[in-house]
Amino acid sequence: MKPSIPKGTRDFLPAQVYKRNFIFDTIRSVFKKYGYQPIETPTMENLSTLTGKYGEEGDKLLFKILNSGEFLKKNKKEKINQEDIDKGEKHILPIVSEKGLRYDLTVPFARFVVMNQNEIALPFKRFQIQPVWRADRPQKGRYREFYQCDVDVVGSNSLMYEAELVKIYDEVFHKLNLKSIIKINNRKILFGLAEANGIQDHFMSMTMAIDKLDKIGEEKVITEMTNRGISEEAAKNVLSLLTIDNLTDLEKEFTNAPTGQKGIEELREFHNYLDLTSVYNTIKFEISLARGLSYYTGCIFEVEADTNVYPNLKMGSIGGGGRYDDLTGNFGLKGVSGVGVSFGAERIYDVMEEENLFPHGVEKDLDVLLIAFDDETHKFAFKQLQLLRSMNVVADLYPDPAKMQKQMKYANARKVPYVLLIGSKEMETGEFTLKNMNTGEQSLLTFDEVVEKIATA
Amino acid sequence: MKPSIPKGTRDFLPAQVYKRNFIFDTIRSVFKKYGYQPIETPTMENLSTLTGKYGEEGDKLLFKILNSGEFLKKNKKEKINQEDIDKGEKHILPIVSEKGLRYDLTVPFARFVVMNQNEIALPFKRFQIQPVWRADRPQKGRYREFYQCDVDVVGSNSLMYEAELVKIYDEVFHKLNLKSIIKINNRKILFGLAEANGIQDHFMSMTMAIDKLDKIGEEKVITEMTNRGISEEAAKNVLSLLTIDNLTDLEKEFTNAPTGQKGIEELREFHNYLDLTSVYNTIKFEISLARGLSYYTGCIFEVEADTNVYPNLKMGSIGGGGRYDDLTGNFGLKGVSGVGVSFGAERIYDVMEEENLFPHGVEKDLDVLLIAFDDETHKFAFKQLQLLRSMNVVADLYPDPAKMQKQMKYANARKVPYVLLIGSKEMETGEFTLKNMNTGEQSLLTFDEVVEKIATA
Repeated sequence: MKPSIPKGTRDFLPAQVYKRNFIFDTIRSVFKKYGYQPIETPTMENLSTLTGKYGEEGDKLLFKILNSGEFLKKNKKEKINQEDIDKGEKHILPIVSEKGLRYDLTVPFARFVVMNQNEIALPFKRFQIQPVWRADRPQKGRYREFYQCDVDVVGSNSLMYEAELVKIYDEVFHKLNLKSIIKINNRKILFGLAEANGIQDHFMSMTMAIDKLDKIGEEKVITEMTNRGISEEAAKNVLSLLTIDNLTDLEKEFTNAPTGQKGIEELREFHNYLDLTSVYNTIKFEISLARGLSYYTGCIFEVEADTNVYPNLKMGSIGGGGRYDDLTGNFGLKGVSGVGVSFGAERIYDVMEEENLFPHGVEKDLDVLLIAFDDETHKFAFKQLQLLRSMNVVADLYPDPAKMQKQMKYANARKVPYVLLIGSKEMETGEFTLKNMNTGEQSLLTFDEVVEKIATA
Repeated sequence: MKPSIPKGTRDFLPAQVYKRNFIFDTIRSVFKKYGYQPIETPTMENLSTLTGKYGEEGDKLLFKILNSGEFLKKNKKEKINQEDIDKGEKHILPIVSEKGLRYDLTVPFARFVVMNQNEIALPFKRFQIQPVWRADRPQKGRYREFYQCDVDVVGSNSLMYEAELVKIYDEVFHKLNLKSIIKINNRKILFGLAEANGIQDHFMSMTMAIDKLDKIGEEKVITEMTNRGISEEAAKNVLSLLTIDNLTDLEKEFTNAPTGQKGIEELREFHNYLDLTSVYNTIKFEISLARGLSYYTGCIFEVEADTNVYPNLKMGSIGGGGRYDDLTGNFGLKGVSGVGVSFGAERIYDVMEEENLFPHGVEKDLDVLLIAFDDETHKFAFKQLQLLRSMNVVADLYPDPAKMQKQMKYANARKVPYVLLIGSKEMETGEFTLKNMNTGEQSLLTFDEVVEKIATA
C-alpha cells in the first residue's frame, strides 16, 4: 500500500525546483546570448542508435523498453521457446526490446544532425537541457535519472568556438557566483607525449594511466604504464614531461612529435581568440588532463570548483568537453567536426547547496497572502485578489474564512513575506492591515498603498 | 545505417522549440501568478503505482522498462522456463519488468502528495509541466511522447478554487490570443438527471451515452441508453432535460434529485466567486458535458477553441479537468479532495499554427551576425562580439573569414535581422556597415551607434 519510487530517482519539491531552475535558467540564458539554439530529442531512441556507442559497460547501463503487446513473439510469429531462453539474456534482448532511454545528449545530437541535415545550416550551434537515464548503482550524488546541459557546435573546425565555449563556462559560473578553475589541454599534445617517447602504439594505455595521476600518484602511474608494455625509461620521461606548464617549454620537447606540434599550434590559436577577452575565473593549461577513454581528438576542457576558495569541498569535475573530429560518422555523415561542453548540473547544485551560493529569495514564490474572516469578506477578498494578480502581484487567498491561527500557520508554511487581513471593518473603511511576516510590523494601508508597498518590497 | 527515431516520437528543431516554449512559458507564468508551485516527479514509476489506475486499456498502453541485468530470472534464482512462456505475456510481465514510464501527471501527483505529506502544507497548490508516454497507435496529432501541463490544488473543498482555475484558463488563452469557450458542468448534476428519472443504477451507462451526443446525435444516444436497460421514456426525458441551459429551470426538475440539487448549489457557489471578476472568453454551462468515464465527482471543465472565431477549425478539446473527492485514496491517504485542470499543449500548438496565432518574432534568436574578411579582422570581430554580448545583445560571428557570399548565405539561413561587416578599413575608421537584412538598407555607423540601433530594433 505504501507508495515508493524506483531507486535512484527523485521527487522534487517546489523549493528544489526553484533552485534547480535557477541553475538551468542561468545556463540557458548564457547559451542563448552566445547564439546557440535549443533542440529537443525523444526520450526513447531505437536501440540500434544507442547500442555500441558507450562501450560494453554502457550497453549494460542502458534502460531498455519492453516491446508493447506480444513481446514474446519472434518476428511477430512464433513465441520464444526454452532453447531461446537457454541462450540467455543477450539472445532474448533484441527479441523483447527495440527501444531504450536516452543515455546522454551527444549520440542523440549526432543522430539528429544526420536526420535533419536538410533543415539546419552549418555551423549548427545547439544547446540541449534534458534528462538522461543510466542503470548505474545509485549512490550519493549519483542518480539513475539526471539532467545534462550540453552546448555544441557542429560543422566547423574554427578554434574560435573553443574560445567561445570557455567564455560560456566563465560567464555561467560567474553568474552562479561559483568560483571555478577551467582546465585546458589538447589530445594531440597527449599524443605528442607518446610520439616524443616513441610509444605511439601505447597511446591509449599511456592516456588511461595519466588520467589516474590525481588519484593514484606518480609511482603507480609508472607501474601501470610498465605493466602495459611501456619501458620504464619512457614511462618516467612521460611523467617528467607532465610537469611542464607552458607551451614554449613543451615545444622544445616536441621536435620529433608532429602531432604534438599541431596540438601546440591549436592551443595557441585558441589563446589568440580567448586572450582578446577578459575572464572571471582561472584558466589553466594542464598537460595531464586526459578526459579518460573519450573520443575527443582536439582541445579538451574540464571544470572544477576552485578549492582555493572552497577548501572543504570534495567534489569532482562540474563540467567537461572537447572537440571530436568525426561527430556524425557513426550515422553515415563523414567529416563533420564538432566541439562542445557539458555542465554537470547535479554536482553544481550540490556545490551551491554546500557552499550556500544560492541567492537570497530564490525559493520565494508568493508576494502576499490574503486572509478573510467570514463569508462576505472572503468574497470581497477574492475580488481584491484578482485585482492584485492583474497587477502581476503573486497573491493568494486562504480558501475559507477559517480561524485566524489556522490561516497564519498556512502563511508561515508558505513562507510568505506579507499577510493582508480583510475583515468587515476594513471593507467599510477601505484601509487594510498589512503584516510584515519577517518583522511582525503591521501597517494600516489603503489598497493602493498595499500594492505599492509589496511591489517595492 | 540510416538512423531513425521510434514511431510516435519527434525531434524538435529550434523554431519548434521556440514556439512550444512560448506556450509553456505563458502557461507557467500564469500558474505562478496564481500562487501555484512547481514540482517534478520521476520519468519512471513503479508498475505497482501505475497499474490499475487507467483501466485495462490503459495498462496495455503503459511503456514498461525491462529489468536490468538477468531479467529472465524469477525471484533472482531460477530462469523462466517453457512453462512460464506458455502462460503468456501476462505471466511473464511482472517477472521481467517492475517499472513503467509516466502515463499522466495525476497519478504521480497523488503518489507524490502521499509520500511527501510531511513536507507540504495543505491546501497544496502545484503545477507540473512534464512529458508523458503512451503506447497508443500514432496518428495525426497523437504522439507516444507528449507534454501535459497540469495545475491542481489538493486538500480543500472550497469552490473558490474552481473559480480560480477557470480564471487561469481564461488568462492563459487570453495571453495566447486564442479565443476559447470554457464549458462547465458538475457530475452531481449529471447524477441528478439519473435521479430525476429513477435510473441511478444506470448512471454510468447514461453518462457514457450522453458523452457521445456531439458525435452520434440524439437518436443514437437514446438507442444506446435503451440497449443498456434504460426505459425509452426515461431516455427521452434525459434528452429533453439536456436542452436546459440555466440553473433556475433545472432546479424545477430536480425536486426529487437531492444530489442534483447539491450540484446546482455547487455551481452557484462557484459563480458567486467567478462573477466577482471579469473574463475574456466565453464561459458556458453545458449540462451534457460529461468528461467520459472519468473519476470526477464535482465540477467539471472542458475548453474548446471558439469555432465562431475559427470556423474552419476541426479540433477537439484543448483543456479539461474537474474535482475528484478522493485524490490520494489509492495510496492510503483518505478524504483528501482535489481539483485541477490540464492544458492540451500539443493541440494548442496545432490550433495556433493553423490559425497563425504565434506572435511575430517568436522564432527570432539572433540580433546580429558579424562578418569579417581576413584573419586580422576576424580576431578584431571576435573582440567586438564579446563586447556586444556583454551588453546582452545576442550576437554571433561566422567562424572563418570565408567568402562574403558564403557568410551572407549563413546569415539568411539563421534569419538574422542585421549583419555587421568588419573589414580592415572599418577597423581603421571605426565606422562599420550595418545591413538590415529585411530592407537591404546599409548604414555606416560607429560601434556605439550599432549597439543603439540593434537594441531599439
